[in-house]
Amino acid sequence: MMRLLLISSSNVYGYGFLDHAEPEILRVLGGRRSIAFVPFAQHDHDAYTLIVRERFARMDVEVTQVRDANDIENAQAIFIGGGNTFRLLKAMYDRSLIAPIQRRVCDEGVPYIGSSAGTNVACPTIMTTNDMPIVYPPSFAALGLVRFQINPHYLDVDADSTHKGETREERILQFLEDNATPVIGLREGTMIAVENHTTTLLGLQSARLFQRGAEPMELEAGSAIAL
Amino acid sequence: MMRLLLISSSNVYGYGFLDHAEPEILRVLGGRRSIAFVPFAQHDHDAYTLIVRERFARMDVEVTQVRDANDIENAQAIFIGGGNTFRLLKAMYDRSLIAPIQRRVCDEGVPYIGSSAGTNVACPTIMTTNDMPIVYPPSFAALGLVRFQINPHYLDVDADSTHKGETREERILQFLEDNATPVIGLREGTMIAVENHTTTLLGLQSARLFQRGAEPMELEAGSAIAL
Repeated sequence: MMRLLLISSSNVYGYGFLDHAEPEILRVLGGRRSIAFVPFAQHDHDAYTLIVRERFARMDVEVTQVRDANDIENAQAIFIGGGNTFRLLKAMYDRSLIAPIQRRVCDEGVPYIGSSAGTNVACPTIMTTNDMPIVYPPSFAALGLVRFQINPHYLDVDADSTHKGETREERILQFLEDNATPVIGLREGTMIAVENHTTTLLGLQSARLFQRGAEPMELEAGSAIAL
Repeated sequence: MMRLLLISSSNVYGYGFLDHAEPEILRVLGGRRSIAFVPFAQHDHDAYTLIVRERFARMDVEVTQVRDANDIENAQAIFIGGGNTFRLLKAMYDRSLIAPIQRRVCDEGVPYIGSSAGTNVACPTIMTTNDMPIVYPPSFAALGLVRFQINPHYLDVDADSTHKGETREERILQFLEDNATPVIGLREGTMIAVENHTTTLLGLQSARLFQRGAEPMELEAGSAIAL
């Protein structure tokens, strides 16, 4: 029985690092006092781990740094942090972490926490990331812990903008021209929890659901998501 | 001797489609009255071609729609339009267009005009696109008509933003953590012309140059670029 917490972003305006998610992090950990941290979305793995270790210490949770599949085998819980999604996914392939994480999370119920890039890789593919494709992963296929795509840091259209680049909504509609998987635009400050086979939207704002052939619609905070 | 015009975006605030670039388009065409249009960055190739055909008709230039490599062989000039860069590059591989375009532009001096995604694919790779990775191309390697990377639609940091996603500058600095190729952040309304072995920044604004190990710096409009 899977236990997932998929966070839009670790940083939210007005809050410190992971502060807005702390109650939900403690809930999904269910009393576990150790977590294996996957730092590969950022360039300096050790520096990133120190920041995360300090933050989890304030929750009385010990952080171990993941380097290879053995560290996944020994994990009581797994946290994949944000940064660049392409870099993260490539490192997960290079270090053969995909299958071990899938097995431990899907089959053994090890809690999985992802934030931003760590939320992208929990989806079937990384095809709805916002990140720049700075490295070429061997595939865009990711962990597939959920059956829908998430777009983290979802941003509403700014009607006053003079910028002519695609809006986030336009980019997601492009995705749906070429793919049939639904996409949840997850605004900063919100997260998706999966527990007891129920998927719930948490946080202070609604999320935006995009499905092929339907108008985009809002999912209310606190509501169950059936996709 | 290459003739390139690499436009940041076809649409610019306050202008109609390609209006701001019309004088430069006519200059790079050097009297040619026909251009082969590559429409693969957008989903509906025929609809996209109609829009481009109407726009070039107002410049007295006939537009043919590229479907395969034969259309490249017969081209007097080539225009690759904007849309999704991943979709565009994948189609260029699927239709075996890469080598023919390189040969005609680099060896035979056929003028090349790119806008947005069409500018991304003129670079060594598409690793500095802003687009969502909605399809998986067989490589990120692109035409390599220039030796530097371009980030089209370059956006300055908005100091008032409460959004916590990476800024454009942060994304380009991530690229430079993993790659050594310089990157030019090309603001909307600006373009890069290559002619007589000289690379020139055109338009009303400066561009921002990012190089590994150096502070980002501004390139002035009208100045020659030596990279």
